[in-house]
Amino acid sequence: MLIVQKYGGTSVGSIERMKNVAARCLATQRQGHHVAVVVSAMSGETNRLLGLVNQLQEDHNDREVDVIVSTGEQVSVGLVALAIRAAGGKARSFLGHQCKIITDSSFSRARIVSIDGQPLRDAMAAGEIAVIAGFQGVDEKGSITTLGRGGSDTTGVAIAAALKADVCEIYTDVDGVYTTDPNIVPNARKIDRISYEEMLELASLGAKVLQLRSVELGMKYGVPIHVRTSFSDAPGTWVVPEEPSMEKVVVSGVTASRDEAKITLEDLPDIPGIAARMFAPLADANISVDMIVQNQAHGGTTDLTFTVPKLDRKRSVELLKEKVPDIVGEAGERIAWDDDISKVSVVGVGMRSHAGVAKTMFTLLAQEGINIKLISTSEIKISCVIARKYAELAIRTLHEGFGLSLAPSERTGL
Amino acid sequence: MLIVQKYGGTSVGSIERMKNVAARCLATQRQGHHVAVVVSAMSGETNRLLGLVNQLQEDHNDREVDVIVSTGEQVSVGLVALAIRAAGGKARSFLGHQCKIITDSSFSRARIVSIDGQPLRDAMAAGEIAVIAGFQGVDEKGSITTLGRGGSDTTGVAIAAALKADVCEIYTDVDGVYTTDPNIVPNARKIDRISYEEMLELASLGAKVLQLRSVELGMKYGVPIHVRTSFSDAPGTWVVPEEPSMEKVVVSGVTASRDEAKITLEDLPDIPGIAARMFAPLADANISVDMIVQNQAHGGTTDLTFTVPKLDRKRSVELLKEKVPDIVGEAGERIAWDDDISKVSVVGVGMRSHAGVAKTMFTLLAQEGINIKLISTSEIKISCVIARKYAELAIRTLHEGFGLSLAPSERTGL
Repeated sequence: MLIVQKYGGTSVGSIERMKNVAARCLATQRQGHHVAVVVSAMSGETNRLLGLVNQLQEDHNDREVDVIVSTGEQVSVGLVALAIRAAGGKARSFLGHQCKIITDSSFSRARIVSIDGQPLRDAMAAGEIAVIAGFQGVDEKGSITTLGRGGSDTTGVAIAAALKADVCEIYTDVDGVYTTDPNIVPNARKIDRISYEEMLELASLGAKVLQLRSVELGMKYGVPIHVRTSFSDAPGTWVVPEEPSMEKVVVSGVTASRDEAKITLEDLPDIPGIAARMFAPLADANISVDMIVQNQAHGGTTDLTFTVPKLDRKRSVELLKEKVPDIVGEAGERIAWDDDISKVSVVGVGMRSHAGVAKTMFTLLAQEGINIKLISTSEIKISCVIARKYAELAIRTLHEGFGLSLAPSERTGL
Repeated sequence: MLIVQKYGGTSVGSIERMKNVAARCLATQRQGHHVAVVVSAMSGETNRLLGLVNQLQEDHNDREVDVIVSTGEQVSVGLVALAIRAAGGKARSFLGHQCKIITDSSFSRARIVSIDGQPLRDAMAAGEIAVIAGFQGVDEKGSITTLGRGGSDTTGVAIAAALKADVCEIYTDVDGVYTTDPNIVPNARKIDRISYEEMLELASLGAKVLQLRSVELGMKYGVPIHVRTSFSDAPGTWVVPEEPSMEKVVVSGVTASRDEAKITLEDLPDIPGIAARMFAPLADANISVDMIVQNQAHGGTTDLTFTVPKLDRKRSVELLKEKVPDIVGEAGERIAWDDDISKVSVVGVGMRSHAGVAKTMFTLLAQEGINIKLISTSEIKISCVIARKYAELAIRTLHEGFGLSLAPSERTGL
């Protein structure tokens, strides 16, 4: 088999831990596999480098910032290659420009366009373990780019896709994907297998195990992803194409996001084109609007509510006052907002074939006296915005109510 | 004019100092010049990175070690480029692979083969300051290489040669080249102009201001080198082709080296081929032999003395015992050595046309009761090996005796 392993910053956080990574790579190779390893910067290193940058400028979306922060992974690949050799193996490091990880030129959040797998295949054919720098690439002009926080996951899956690897193992400091955050619900269960679609919803909703883009790539190229810990041999969570048995599990996980804010526009005139005009200035400013809910008009006016990243809330309100004063009122008197919200969601491919999930969710929250401020749904997800102070209670209630602490086979009905 | 400026680790040792470098580059550009800047790693950074390497292996002559240590300069170029922009200028960083600083594949001590100046010229034509990583290059396969300690000086002069620059300014933490070490002789004088040949002798004899290889390159391509400090605007020392006026100065500088050891082979049979056989094992082991002195034979035997780097003395003795026991004696009884030596030298192109320098030197040392153990001479240099404990006394005596604390025009006779 051809196995790609990706190790995060904690797994390569010291020379001792790098020796552990080297031992793991060599053990895999000794089982007869070809091994390519993608590594992150040593934990803390990226923040140290950004600390230097911050003394000069705040903007991180910059060619030179990528030159600086990409050195973290460069140091890691060299050290891991040395550690593999120190343990008796053969290894060679590859930087973004050496295995042609070509990206667009969006510094600090570049997207991979193509990868040249040949140098990696040549190294592995020669018995070497290919050690590849995560997080980085080069654009067409040869400038160094980086893929954004968590970008090494994306590098791992992209390398696996380019090499047509049998699996991409993502080693992290947790041992898999859980039904919810174990810090909030101690009896949360590790999920054995989950579909790309569910993982995408969980990843975008706040579960921090895998970067969103890496799951998208895995789905696009059909790369099986195995999320597991580098501190033991226990199997973790497989992220794979949807399987028939998955539908039997109605809800796979419960998650909460705390970094959004809610903005409401009250008593808007109910005439066509208002919404389009209102969201234009936000889109122009690259502010991503998430949930949008408009109630039916009553008495000629309507209320429109939406959520934005909490960091963008203040700027959103200012932009609306400045750009569309005729809609929001000269002094913005029609705008209200709420920063103290949390979005709790239940996710599961089984929802497609099971009615009643929404009803159960609303009932469970109501029984605890939790008021729902906003609702949005997708095919495999239901999200409710609630007051922040109820977030943990809601998660515990939903996790228990949907029976997620039980093995999938033991869960009965709803 | 086209000006290349090279800043050492101390000059870019903090963000504050990088701002000073940025201001200096911009002031030069504002005078109407094109500016290319070569920077070293922040002081201490290369040692920090080698400290990580040393936890895995001692050998630094390694492809992966170059991958690791080259990141120090990479961080510096990004930060200096940001500092120039923060000060209102335009800048772009260049790594070894981005301006094609092609080297051979001798990791940790690579030699530059060629440089592509076009991307640098394009950047400068667009009003940008080109900020180039010192110390690093790439070999023909695209592997990262480094040029050895002090390699950023070499990058600076090589870039200046490739761009046909008018001058290469080497900024360091001292304000020029002195007639001797000012820590030993407080009234040592800064030299205004010195020839490449003299600088080569001073550099190879222990003056640590400029890397030897950079002076060789400057001489080969006729690049004027201006050694100066980044902490003031005072002019420093110009290293240039020999000028007629330089011959009037008989001795330009006095220097001492403390890192050699002396090995003597006593009572060797005086037959042809002995020396050749004896130095072969040392050459094979890459041990560089410096001074070699053989006395005339008396009574059928002769004494042969030579110096090696002190770090190689023990291994040299072992190699000789192992490889040529018939020459040095089964138990090495013909070998003697002395680690407590120092080599003091006087250097000056004026020696070519002035007799009597050697006589004066020996007389000065004798007057202080300093015994000379070995002598070697070149066209513009006389070196004497003496007991280490007399090194500082010898330097002060020679510096005073040759009148080096006086301005060149005030020195009279010998």
